[in-house]
Amino acid sequence: MNIFDLSTPALLIDADALDFNLATMAAVHPGSRLRPHVKAHKCTSLAAAQYAYGHHSFTCATPREVLGMAAAGLGDDLLLANETLDPARLSALAAAQDNALITVAVDSNETVDAAAAAGLKYVLVDVNVGLRRCGCLPGEAGHLADHARDRGLVVRGVMGYEGHLMAMADRAAQRASVAEAMEKLMVASLLVGGDIISAGGTDTYDLHDQVNEIQAGTYALMDTYYGGRGHPFKQACFVLATVISANDEYAVGDAGTKTQGMDHGNPAIEGAVVRFLSDEHITFAAPTRPALGDRVKLIPAHIDPTMAMHEAAFLVRGDEVIDRWPIDLRGW
Amino acid sequence: MNIFDLSTPALLIDADALDFNLATMAAVHPGSRLRPHVKAHKCTSLAAAQYAYGHHSFTCATPREVLGMAAAGLGDDLLLANETLDPARLSALAAAQDNALITVAVDSNETVDAAAAAGLKYVLVDVNVGLRRCGCLPGEAGHLADHARDRGLVVRGVMGYEGHLMAMADRAAQRASVAEAMEKLMVASLLVGGDIISAGGTDTYDLHDQVNEIQAGTYALMDTYYGGRGHPFKQACFVLATVISANDEYAVGDAGTKTQGMDHGNPAIEGAVVRFLSDEHITFAAPTRPALGDRVKLIPAHIDPTMAMHEAAFLVRGDEVIDRWPIDLRGW
Repeated sequence: MNIFDLSTPALLIDADALDFNLATMAAVHPGSRLRPHVKAHKCTSLAAAQYAYGHHSFTCATPREVLGMAAAGLGDDLLLANETLDPARLSALAAAQDNALITVAVDSNETVDAAAAAGLKYVLVDVNVGLRRCGCLPGEAGHLADHARDRGLVVRGVMGYEGHLMAMADRAAQRASVAEAMEKLMVASLLVGGDIISAGGTDTYDLHDQVNEIQAGTYALMDTYYGGRGHPFKQACFVLATVISANDEYAVGDAGTKTQGMDHGNPAIEGAVVRFLSDEHITFAAPTRPALGDRVKLIPAHIDPTMAMHEAAFLVRGDEVIDRWPIDLRGW
Repeated sequence: MNIFDLSTPALLIDADALDFNLATMAAVHPGSRLRPHVKAHKCTSLAAAQYAYGHHSFTCATPREVLGMAAAGLGDDLLLANETLDPARLSALAAAQDNALITVAVDSNETVDAAAAAGLKYVLVDVNVGLRRCGCLPGEAGHLADHARDRGLVVRGVMGYEGHLMAMADRAAQRASVAEAMEKLMVASLLVGGDIISAGGTDTYDLHDQVNEIQAGTYALMDTYYGGRGHPFKQACFVLATVISANDEYAVGDAGTKTQGMDHGNPAIEGAVVRFLSDEHITFAAPTRPALGDRVKLIPAHIDPTMAMHEAAFLVRGDEVIDRWPIDLRGW
């Protein structure tokens, strides 16, 4: 099967680029040094490829991601790196503990109590290291861990995502800022105990020397947002569109805002100028007028929400379609 | 069942606001004067409510929407208001013609030929009235209709979406611009023949006096983009989130960029200031600190991609959940 046989829009994963990215990261952060974040792809087939590269612990953002990973036999060590108070979902996670080691992040007494009430065994203290989102203050982390232990939970350590430091222009300043943020996490780690000190993302994967695991996700598939940052990872994911209308000034492809995350702006098309996207269309100007039926590959600006919009991705080598991977971890 | 029993994020449709919007539009554009656009909700249950209000012809943006509407028994008159060259999808549409009247938009000889080759019976000529996207030039419309008739197709008329004129600041200027754009469509209509002259959207639903049907979609559910435009439609759709983390400065809800379209910017929360969204979170500042577990309703900035991100919507009256509507027209 060839990509010209695919109905569009279609999500493509370049098998060789993916493999290159997985190998490159595994060389820098082998085994448990990397806890790949499945929110960036929501695909157990891709997670299995990461597993085959030696990473047996994973980061998840939603209960459904955790449950799907456990059901796929990838449940050696699953971290829900997010807070939830939902008794139904926490109970579902607790029920999956027979087949998986499941740890949930907590940042308040209430999230600790909810985890304990549902019958979960393991928690990690989520620490705010500067990103103004979830996470307790470093100085509160010890009390929270005490409370968790009082409730019978095993506290495995700390995490602290430095999301506010991604994509900084000056890499030297970024390295210094990451070190400063991680000092907060190290303080929390001393107060909390446990083995895990988890942080990081694709854009800071090479800036950490204090934590013992990195939660990178984007590196596997990449997007334009991190693609211009000088990292050694290749673009491995594209939205394939068909040119359905064209004139001497511009052409229109059949992939719009329902095919890719728009919070980081428009996607890119190599060698063309993207003008605008609407729900079902991308309008772009190419150096030469495309023929109707031509295929174009859009490079998403933000990979995570892009993956969540598709039922499946097609694994390709060149123009040959070699597999179909369900995006089976969608939803919450 | 109460909204506090729902796992979040969850998509809510306010039954009374929806009913008000459907009644309000049906009073202005009764019956076939409105061809509701299902791309704005992707939900056959909602389309059935529009049908019950007397609109038996619908606009679709994707083949799957057409097929889903036909399968749901809502196929009296389905317009695919979009070009496609895909033989597989066109053949699927042709096969559905036993149970539905299906018309596809064409704007080139190639799209005409593809429709004819697949065995479709009806086409509509898509005319560019100023939006730089699909559509033939008005002066080409007659030749295209001739070509379609030569290929054995019935040409039902013309459509021309004035998307470039939505959300103009000055309503009087907008009315004049719409009239000017529609003059192009009327010229095309004279050249093409057929009964249908179709155009418009929610923001221009009351600015047309030349066309015989309006393709509005957003009016049923609304969003912040059209919500501030002075139209009589109420906000009827929300993304429900749970507060999972909070401090004296801000709170975090569990609904992020995977729950709503971001191409029109951040959603709104009544009485609060939205700071930023990430994949799974919304960070906002409220006048008083929310309690953990509190529910907040996000008003999407763009309804169409928002609907496409959810498996189902919950129909609510106040805080009571009265039905669950699958978003069954997702995908392409």
